[in-house]
Amino acid sequence: MRFDIITVLPGLLESPFAHSILQRAQKKGLAQIHVHNLRDYAPGKQKSVDDYPYGGGSGMVMTIEPFAKCIEALKAERDYDEVIFMSPDGETLNQTIANQLSVKKNIIILCGHYKGIDQRIRDIFVTREVSVGDYVLSGGELPAAIVVDAVVRLIPGVLSDETSALSDSFQDGLLDAPVYTRPAEWQGHKVPDILLSGNTPEIEKWRFEQAVERTRQRRPDLLDE
Amino acid sequence: MRFDIITVLPGLLESPFAHSILQRAQKKGLAQIHVHNLRDYAPGKQKSVDDYPYGGGSGMVMTIEPFAKCIEALKAERDYDEVIFMSPDGETLNQTIANQLSVKKNIIILCGHYKGIDQRIRDIFVTREVSVGDYVLSGGELPAAIVVDAVVRLIPGVLSDETSALSDSFQDGLLDAPVYTRPAEWQGHKVPDILLSGNTPEIEKWRFEQAVERTRQRRPDLLDE
Repeated sequence: MRFDIITVLPGLLESPFAHSILQRAQKKGLAQIHVHNLRDYAPGKQKSVDDYPYGGGSGMVMTIEPFAKCIEALKAERDYDEVIFMSPDGETLNQTIANQLSVKKNIIILCGHYKGIDQRIRDIFVTREVSVGDYVLSGGELPAAIVVDAVVRLIPGVLSDETSALSDSFQDGLLDAPVYTRPAEWQGHKVPDILLSGNTPEIEKWRFEQAVERTRQRRPDLLDE
Repeated sequence: MRFDIITVLPGLLESPFAHSILQRAQKKGLAQIHVHNLRDYAPGKQKSVDDYPYGGGSGMVMTIEPFAKCIEALKAERDYDEVIFMSPDGETLNQTIANQLSVKKNIIILCGHYKGIDQRIRDIFVTREVSVGDYVLSGGELPAAIVVDAVVRLIPGVLSDETSALSDSFQDGLLDAPVYTRPAEWQGHKVPDILLSGNTPEIEKWRFEQAVERTRQRRPDLLDE
């Protein structure tokens, strides 16, 4: 699977893609993550990528031309399944969308900045607009990293222990049961007896009950779906 | 405002905090962001921070001791308003929570990894659990960066143009109207005439109508609130 991320701040994405599971996925050849500097596709000496908004108002708007050139250069090399624009206006990312994207082959992600991007980029090039949540951020870079992380970890072979991904929160519509590790007692705080019992069927039953109870308390909306 | 982020992957957070608005906020002295390596607080030569889960099952669980030591060392230096654990089980981050956090002084953020953290850390130390959305990620680092970004940009003086933050999506309960910049025509695709009219009251009216219409189409739930 290949991601091409277009941004004015390629440096911001350096460390997130160079660690942990995303690093391992790339080393194993299971994911390719390419970050493109939008400014390399900007016209003129100034390498300008933004301009004042038509109709006035605060903030700058990213112009069409650099995005168009970069997207067209990428599309000349291969077919893309999706051109995603990270935007608070988009459909909200969830595990279902992450699962859908994880079976795609090539994905372009556009990161907006400043006041936004010229609407025509969205109208002409973008196939899908995705939001990571109902909050405002400085740009689309961290959201792009979130999408890549959520998707790449679902590619078979990326996680060393595949059952680990399957039992994660949301994959089965429930939050996780609480987990404990050694010591069995820390400053008077004990691990629940059941987990020390060695009775696997009872432990599984307890975990399921705890997961249901936690979901009921914290996220009853997940149980309604 | 000060953030102390505790993680096993401090390197992952290097570039997000060294660019753009988060970099400027730190340079201006409006935000301090400290990233602590959990392993520095781990006992023994191995610097182990995780262990097998009680009761069996896949994945590793992060142990109490390193988190406890790091949190206690920080608390010995100053008072903290919140100890936040980034978790898909937490309350879902939104602009209201970001606004609430932006008036705090000192915040600790714990990043989980692997299968999770020992439940007793959550019971004893954590004051608030926050999720960035209903999807599973490799760890709490990118979510922590999201929280810091969403919050720091709300601190007065961080954004150069303060009206820009106020008119962002969600701050007024509406998505943004579409934005356009030069050229007025690109490969046959034109900017709406109204934006070229110079009639500011009509432009403001159009923008409001567009914002309402986009919100109605894409996120009717925001209008119900």
